Formats: sequence, structure tokens, C-alpha cells
Amino acid sequence: MDGRPTLETVAQRAAVSRQTVSNVLNSPHLVRQETLERVRAVIDEVGYRPHGAARQLRTRRSRVIGLRLERTVDGINGAVLDRFLHALTEQAQLRGYRVMLFTAHDDAAEIGQYGELLDVLELDAFVLTSTHSGDPRTAWLCEHDVPFVTFGRPWDPPGTDGQPDHPWVDVDGAAGTRAAVEHLQDAGHTEIAFVGWPAGSGVGDDRRAGWLRAMRAAGVPQHRLDALDVATEDGIAEGAVAARRLLEHVRPTAFVCASDSLALGVLATLRSADGDLIASGPAQAAVVGFDDTPVARAVGLSSVAQPLTEAAGRALDLLLQQLSGSSGAPTRDHHVLLAPSLVVRESSASAPPT
Amino acid sequence: MDGRPTLETVAQRAAVSRQTVSNVLNSPHLVRQETLERVRAVIDEVGYRPHGAARQLRTRRSRVIGLRLERTVDGINGAVLDRFLHALTEQAQLRGYRVMLFTAHDDAAEIGQYGELLDVLELDAFVLTSTHSGDPRTAWLCEHDVPFVTFGRPWDPPGTDGQPDHPWVDVDGAAGTRAAVEHLQDAGHTEIAFVGWPAGSGVGDDRRAGWLRAMRAAGVPQHRLDALDVATEDGIAEGAVAARRLLEHVRPTAFVCASDSLALGVLATLRSADGDLIASGPAQAAVVGFDDTPVARAVGLSSVAQPLTEAAGRALDLLLQQLSGSSGAPTRDHHVLLAPSLVVRESSASAPPT
Repeated sequence: MDGRPTLETVAQRAAVSRQTVSNVLNSPHLVRQETLERVRAVIDEVGYRPHGAARQLRTRRSRVIGLRLERTVDGINGAVLDRFLHALTEQAQLRGYRVMLFTAHDDAAEIGQYGELLDVLELDAFVLTSTHSGDPRTAWLCEHDVPFVTFGRPWDPPGTDGQPDHPWVDVDGAAGTRAAVEHLQDAGHTEIAFVGWPAGSGVGDDRRAGWLRAMRAAGVPQHRLDALDVATEDGIAEGAVAARRLLEHVRPTAFVCASDSLALGVLATLRSADGDLIASGPAQAAVVGFDDTPVARAVGLSSVAQPLTEAAGRALDLLLQQLSGSSGAPTRDHHVLLAPSLVVRESSASAPPT
Repeated sequence: MDGRPTLETVAQRAAVSRQTVSNVLNSPHLVRQETLERVRAVIDEVGYRPHGAARQLRTRRSRVIGLRLERTVDGINGAVLDRFLHALTEQAQLRGYRVMLFTAHDDAAEIGQYGELLDVLELDAFVLTSTHSGDPRTAWLCEHDVPFVTFGRPWDPPGTDGQPDHPWVDVDGAAGTRAAVEHLQDAGHTEIAFVGWPAGSGVGDDRRAGWLRAMRAAGVPQHRLDALDVATEDGIAEGAVAARRLLEHVRPTAFVCASDSLALGVLATLRSADGDLIASGPAQAAVVGFDDTPVARAVGLSSVAQPLTEAAGRALDLLLQQLSGSSGAPTRDHHVLLAPSLVVRESSASAPPT
């Protein structure tokens, strides 16, 4: 015992459970006024400092990392985060760490869980996924001195709205779509459409940017780029609709998509009269998806693959640097951008009509 | 503090880390002889009882449940366990519990982890997946009085080789394949093949049994059943090969498969000359898969769906009964067999040739 007060110290002295102490700190509305006052008095008396700051002083570590498990959306793109979870759990265990899961409806709810996870379950650190513009989670964790790393870049310039600089690992989506376009250009395609998400999502904008750069490099004029660029919500049905409209009005000979779901919809439109993936009909155009999901392998869809095992390993390296106290101020070494790879299958085999 | 010695008590008195105490208990070969003797003396002196037995006495619970995360095999069938994990995490949190993940190469390694997870991380209970004949994990947990539930039946008769009776939740695979056969029989099919796994796996034998029962009920003679029944390893390529052989020699008009992977292989053979799922060719026969994976939805494959959210909820109910001490001796109520449902799509729409 090093004599520093812990949550347990407070709980014992106030004769309440650890959960009650956590509630006093994180959800005071759940605690009766009398208990609230008594516990707060003990916290002041013993000088207990909740999570973050206190954790930096502790020598004992739980060696447990928290990860919010996100809802599976259509079961296709969600597979990427499931594969990241598998890789993270395996690689964490090789380094002597465990992964604890939790769920939350949104960022605010996720932040609401951090306190309990730190105080009651004594987690050492967090891995955050699905970073986005205006993400409030990273600021909270920095303020409370909690070690963390994100799988996904911060999508605001450093300093925006008090967003902190922090360690992250991400995959270069623009490099992936650029490689897809160049692969199609090598096969003779020039009219290459992009089926992506509405502007404003960091991941989606990044994937669109790679397509745009490669198309501009090939000298495609702006009015043609505007016609070939479609934004739609994610989904197989949405991809099918986008493809039908493009084929009718713009007549591309190839499609690069922001997700395998969209690409499957494009494929369905191309391969059949009635939008059924397995029905008959010759390939009318080439298609490349993104994320190389199991569905892509099953139906022969070319796709951009993320190096998820490497991403998990690098994320853990960044966390362990922080936990061993050797991180210092964040530097460029704390930002790891990994290159994806293009997996070529039958769906992109067709050359443009001559 | 109730005065009962904990792992922490032993660690402090022996001036070692909690991890070292755990190693003394679970991996003594990792500990120097001198330390081993000192820690063992303290354990005897304070009367510390590791996990199991000691846990029953404790009033403080971690409210953490352990789950071994299995390796994804082909990314298609593994999706079922990922969906179970999502459901378990969400439903556990609603009940005030968290899920901690770990990995292990085999059952022995999994058992090797239980001790540390119980002693150092103070887990309350485990959820086991992929039960199989001769499963040694359940006996270990029963011996050590650790609460657990399995998602999957014990595949030996109770009492075999000291296998304990224990709480479990499972999905009735035989009912699923029987429903698939009856759906095909209703459309006029009589020559319905079964493409399943080699005999000996509980899950595989169960799925084969449902097909067999429904075929026998329709009066199909044994020599025909033998011809229509194929056993192969799981996989798309394996399903494609099995379908080619059956079509050449036995000429079924419909296929029921033990997995979506096998069914996708059958579909690939049916829909194209070159084994490509998305190539042309009219449907020659009807196909039903098992597990209703995202791939099945994407390619229009009929499939048997497991009620995974319900399975996770019932598994947690059985665990919480044990943790609240109200379980008593296992009864039939501790065995929950859920009915799957058949999801009909285009792949099973074709009627037999007249």
C-alpha cells in the first residue's frame, strides 16, 4: 500500500459501495442528498482524486483496455470493426493486456461511461473508433489525463474548438481509392464514376479525395468530374439506385465505391435486369469496393483492404508508450497513417468498350 | 472489509505483485523457487482460497463476464459469433455487467486463462461458446465452483467422462434444416440433397439429423438418402465441388446446407459455368443455407436464422440466476433450446422440372 487514497479507501470510510462512490463522482443525480454529502466530505478529507490524475500516480495497473462496441449496421461494413476487435484482442493479450467492451448510444453516453470504467473497473486506457469532426471524447480523455489512442484520424485541424493533438492510427483511404482508379485507368477506363457518401464525413471525404486526385491527374475536366461523382447514404439498395441513374445519364464504364455495400448494389444493377446479384447478365462495367469484406470475397468483388492487424498492433504500441510514461508531448510519431492494398477480383476485369 | 483474505492480502503480505500470486497458483513454473515457497507459506498462513470457492463467499462482485473471442475462420460463419458477442455485450450492459474478452488457441489454453481472469481481474462468470464432445472446460469450471453458461449444448450424454450437467442455451439446428426441407417439399421438391460437415461434430450432426428426419417422413428410401447425403469440410470451394459431383451423379433438384459458406459454393456451381457467383446462367436448383449471414442477404440466399439476441439474453438470465445464488441444482429450466427461423429468398424459388 502506498498510502494514496483510492476509490476503495473512500468507499470504506464512507461505508458505501464502490459503485456509490462512482455515482457520486459521475452520476450524482442517482445518489441521495445525505449520502452525496457524506461521500463528498470523505473525498475532500482523504484527498481522493478521481481517475485520470490519480491514475498517473498509481503503480498498480489493471492491464485492461476499454473499447466501445458499435452497433452493426448492415453486417457488411461493420465487419471491419469486428475484425479490428479480433486483432486488438489478440495483440493486446500478447502484450499482457485484456480488452473490456462496453456500448453507448452516442459520444455523450460514451463519455458518461468513462468515469465508471476508470474508477470502478480500473481500466488503464481506451481505444476509440469512428472518430469524426467535432468529436468530444478526445478532449474529455485529455483533460482527465487518461491514456488513449484512436483508430481513425481526428477530422478537425489541431486546435479547432479545443480539440487536442493525440495519438492515432488510421488507414489512408485516399491512397486506396487512388489505387483503385489507377488500376482501372491501366485497363483503359477513363469514365470512372465515384459512388460515395454525402460530404461531411471525414472517412467519406477522404475516400472521395483519392478518386478526385487520380481523375484530375488523368486530365478529366471538372464538369465531367461533377457528373461522375454521386453521393448517397450507405447500403446495397442505395448503390443499386446510384448505378442505375449513372448508367442512364452519364454512362461510366467503371465505378469506384466508398464501401462494399455500395459496390454490391452497383454490381447487382450491372449483373441483372432485376437487381439480383446472382441472376444472369454480362458484366457491363468494372466495379471496385472498399474494405474487402467477406461478402466481397464471396461474390468476386475487387476491393480496397485495410491492414487491420497492423493497425491494432500500432495502436497498442502507442498506448503502451503512454502507459510506460515514455510518451512525453505528442509528436508526429504519434500519428500513424497506414497504406491499404487493392485486392483485384473478377468485378474489375472488364475493359471499356472500344 | 469483511476480513476474508483476498489475492491482494497475500500479495501485500508476501511483498509481491498480484500477478505473481496468480502465477504461484496457476503457473508455478514461472516463479522462482524462493518466491514460490514464500507466497505459498503466506497463502497457508492467511488461509487464502483461490477463485471458485472463495468467490462464493465474497459480497463484492466485479460484474464482469469473460468470453473467449474465437478466431474468425472464413469471415462468413464467424459472423454468427460476432453477432452473438454484440448482443451479449449490449444485453449484459443493460443488466449492469461488462464483457471482457480473451483469446486462447485451444480448450487447455482457455482453462489456463481462467485462473488469472478470476484471481487477478476478479471476473464473476464466463460465457462459453463452441461446445463440443469431450469439452474439458465445463468440468473445470464446475469443480472450481465458477458460475458459467454455454452457448451451445454439451454434446455428450450427461455423466459421460465426468461431464457435468450445467446451464446452457442453444439453437435447435435440426428444427432449422427440417424447416428448410419442408419448405422445399412444399414447392414440389423430393430429391433434396444435404451438404454438411463430416460426422462427429455435434452442431453438424444435429443439422444433418433434421434433414434426415424430414426426408424419412416423406418416405425417401435409405439408399437414396445415402446418395443425397454429402459430408465435406466447410468452405465455399468445398460446397462448389460437392454440388458439381451431386449434379453429375445424383441429380438433386434442391440442396440444404449446414452453412452459408457451403451454400454459396453450391450457388456458385448452379449459377455459372466457371464457379463464379456473379456470372450468368439460370438457376438449375434450389438452395438453402444456414446462419443467415450478411453474405446470404447480399446474394439472395435463403437461410436458417439463429435468434442471437434472444440467445444472449437467455444466457445472461441463467448466469444472473447463479450469481444471485438462486440456482440450486441444475434443472431442466437451465437448458434452453431456441427455435430458429427460415428466411426465404430467391435462391429457393425454383420448382423442380416437371
